[in-house]
Amino acid sequence: MDLQAYNKLSYGVYIIASGDKDKKNAFVCTAAIQVTADPPKIAVVCNKNNHTTGIIKEKKNFSVSVLSQNYQPLTLGTFGFRTGKDFDKFGKATFIYGTETGVPIVLDDIIAWFECELEQSVDVGTHIIFVGKVLQSQTIAENETPLTYKYYHEIKKGIVHKNAPSNNQ
Amino acid sequence: MDLQAYNKLSYGVYIIASGDKDKKNAFVCTAAIQVTADPPKIAVVCNKNNHTTGIIKEKKNFSVSVLSQNYQPLTLGTFGFRTGKDFDKFGKATFIYGTETGVPIVLDDIIAWFECELEQSVDVGTHIIFVGKVLQSQTIAENETPLTYKYYHEIKKGIVHKNAPSNNQ
Repeated sequence: MDLQAYNKLSYGVYIIASGDKDKKNAFVCTAAIQVTADPPKIAVVCNKNNHTTGIIKEKKNFSVSVLSQNYQPLTLGTFGFRTGKDFDKFGKATFIYGTETGVPIVLDDIIAWFECELEQSVDVGTHIIFVGKVLQSQTIAENETPLTYKYYHEIKKGIVHKNAPSNNQ
Repeated sequence: MDLQAYNKLSYGVYIIASGDKDKKNAFVCTAAIQVTADPPKIAVVCNKNNHTTGIIKEKKNFSVSVLSQNYQPLTLGTFGFRTGKDFDKFGKATFIYGTETGVPIVLDDIIAWFECELEQSVDVGTHIIFVGKVLQSQTIAENETPLTYKYYHEIKKGIVHKNAPSNNQ
């Protein structure tokens, strides 16, 4: 097995949120992908140990916020490298609640967002693929460049979280 | 629904092949993603109308070949915009058969490849998510840049196939 080969797969970088006003969390994820266009559905891949994973199962919603290449390190630090088990990641964040599902949608350093209703959960071992139907979507920064994992890793020297499906260390 | 938002999701460009010496086909796909690291598994999203989809179901294997940014238009034309129902896409192609599953693996304009054994098929409507366990992987052009959909679309002015999960027209 050549582990370097996995670095040749291309990904964006997203903040995945779930929950409602009473209980919510979010994390940073590279594994998000559109799986159908009619109706539009998006799949996200979550580690079973992620705090957000339990909330997606319970609340049956998730949002996908597309990070800009011009992100603030604090945004990735807060949402990507802290656990929401004992820390409110939304404390200093800018966010709204989706009008269809009540899901929190993070707006910090974001280009576009999607509000999804959970349709299917697929157990693939250490991770779960959540498939959601997109109920609303919005572009909020048309001219900004989406952050890619390649840019984050090669230009910003960022590292992958231990729970990522692409953590091949 | 803001359809422009979907253009902010980031993808690579891959040739997905399936079959064996008797029957094989391949197509071009942007929807491929690593879903677990231990053991490594990759998911690919295929339209139910794709000829390759039926072969993946029957032969229970697929390969993922990562296209280089320095690809030849003929490679994308052959594998991406012709149907294998009445045309042998492998006729002028360079390819090998994986030693674990016998799956064809396209090598033309490729940076790295993965040989996968089908583990799960998830019906998500118009498309199927195929989850495969990676049995072998290899990097064959370490210093080349992987083709992204963004580069293909914005620099090369390429278009999306009607069967793509991201065909939001």
